[in-house]
Formats: sequence, C-alpha cells, structure tokens
Amino acid sequence: MARTDYYSDPRAPKPNSIVPAATAIVPDGEGRVLLIRRSDNGRWALPGGQMDIGEHLAGSAVREVKEETGLDVEVVKIIGIYTDPRHVIAYDDGEVRQQFAVCFETRVTGGSLLADGSEARDARFVAAEELDGLNIHSSIRLRIAHYFQNKPTAHIG
Amino acid sequence: MARTDYYSDPRAPKPNSIVPAATAIVPDGEGRVLLIRRSDNGRWALPGGQMDIGEHLAGSAVREVKEETGLDVEVVKIIGIYTDPRHVIAYDDGEVRQQFAVCFETRVTGGSLLADGSEARDARFVAAEELDGLNIHSSIRLRIAHYFQNKPTAHIG
Repeated sequence: MARTDYYSDPRAPKPNSIVPAATAIVPDGEGRVLLIRRSDNGRWALPGGQMDIGEHLAGSAVREVKEETGLDVEVVKIIGIYTDPRHVIAYDDGEVRQQFAVCFETRVTGGSLLADGSEARDARFVAAEELDGLNIHSSIRLRIAHYFQNKPTAHIG
Repeated sequence: MARTDYYSDPRAPKPNSIVPAATAIVPDGEGRVLLIRRSDNGRWALPGGQMDIGEHLAGSAVREVKEETGLDVEVVKIIGIYTDPRHVIAYDDGEVRQQFAVCFETRVTGGSLLADGSEARDARFVAAEELDGLNIHSSIRLRIAHYFQNKPTAHIG
C-alpha cells in the first residue's frame, strides 16, 4: 500500500486515525544500526510497524524486526515517544494517520540477516557517518540521532 | 459511558480497538500523588484519558489533568508504557479496547485543585500508605508503584 509522508505541510490531508507503531534500533555492537529499505516508498528506515491487537507494544517491535530482517531481538529500553501532530501519513485507501511511534533500543539475541521479505527490499547495518548519504525521512533520522546521543532519559515528542 | 475492566479474565470480550491514552503522576512535593475518583466506575485513578487527533501524547496528559483536576502541569519524564493485552476495557457502545497507556511524571506549574468536572467526582493528593485503603484498579496501582520505585529507566510492559 502506497504511503505519503507530510511534515508541517499545509497540503497534508486531515488525519482521521491514530495507530500506535513500534520502531526498533538494532545495534550491531560496532557503532552501526540496522536499517531496511522500504518497499512502499524506497526510503531507508528503522524496522518497525503497527501494533496488532493481542500484542504488547514491545512485542510488536520484536515481531517486526524478525519479519523485516530475520533477526531475533529483545527490547532494552525506550529511545523515545514520537507523536508529532505535524507529521501526517496518508495511505491510498483514504486512511490518514497522525504519527504515533515508540522507538525502542533492542539487542540481537539470534537469527540471521535476511532481505527477501515483502516489506523490506534490503536490510543492512549502517554507521552514523553513512546516514547523510541515504534517503531517510526526517522523522526516522530524529530517532536514530536520539539513539546516538545516548541521553539518560527517553525523548518525549 | 460505562466501562468494565477485565484482567486475565476468560470472560473478557475480544478487543476490537487500540486507543492510546496518557495518564499522569502529579506529585505534590510532599510524597503524595494526585488521584481522582472516576464518575464512570467509582474507582480512584490517575488523571488521564485518550489522546485526541492533533495533540502530542504528552499534551493529552497535560490537558486531561487540567480538565479533571484544575491543575496546570508540565511533563517531566516517562514512568512507563502499559500495553498488556490481558487488560481489556469494554464500553457499553460495543467498543472493546486493549490497554494502551503511557504514564508520565509531571510537575505542577499552576492552577488550583477543583473537583467539579463531569469526569471526576473528587480529586485529592494521596500518600503511599493510604493507597491500600482505596478502591484502585490493579493497573493503576502498578503505575503508582513504578513512580514510587523511582527507577532510572521507564517500565516497558
């Protein structure tokens, strides 16, 4: 399903839903974080997706990382809560979501990196200095920056 | 609107929605936290409520505290994320929500304590040792306990 991201854009449609999502920082222990290339818009992003009924939110992060990358992870801590009403995501079925994402730091516990899923075209670990050269939405750059800043308290935004 | 809380209850109806809510710990600086008496089920609870489209989640906490208690607060940090699928809330219009709440610690910046709103019948600051004597749902007791435990990292559950 095609998605269009709007940020502080007067042309953005009016949101009609709030759908909690979880995104995951998956570090490789050598200063890099796992990014996937989204098949819906071609951008690089953190693994993640919407919470399903019946899950804990942290469980959604674990499930999405597995589905999108093949890795098994466990959640370590909260990097931040991202609910900026200026960020609106429109889908081609008429749903218009206001951003609602929690970003968790995780730790790899098993699995092996795959990139043949339907949601991700590619998945690889990326160093901080490589980020500028990739097509990454600003809302995702912000979460990655918060991880690298390594502040003692989670971001609330 | 009447609500019924279920926890690990095989009689609970199947959830059909996830609606993010914010709850607030409002300390008085003397070891007590603000509780309200809910008009929908008579229980004592933390001020809070569901997020509206157009708000930041932390803004929902600030708004609900103002509406329910008259106090102005600012958000300080995240106490925890509470998304336990065993906690199901049924409303009399057929909506059945799975729990999704973020509990924020706040700080009073102004206002004065009122208790004449439609949502709250009573609002007062309560000390830790008074909690056992009040009718408080276990999910709310857990958040208050996490506040008093004062751990360095937020709860993820």
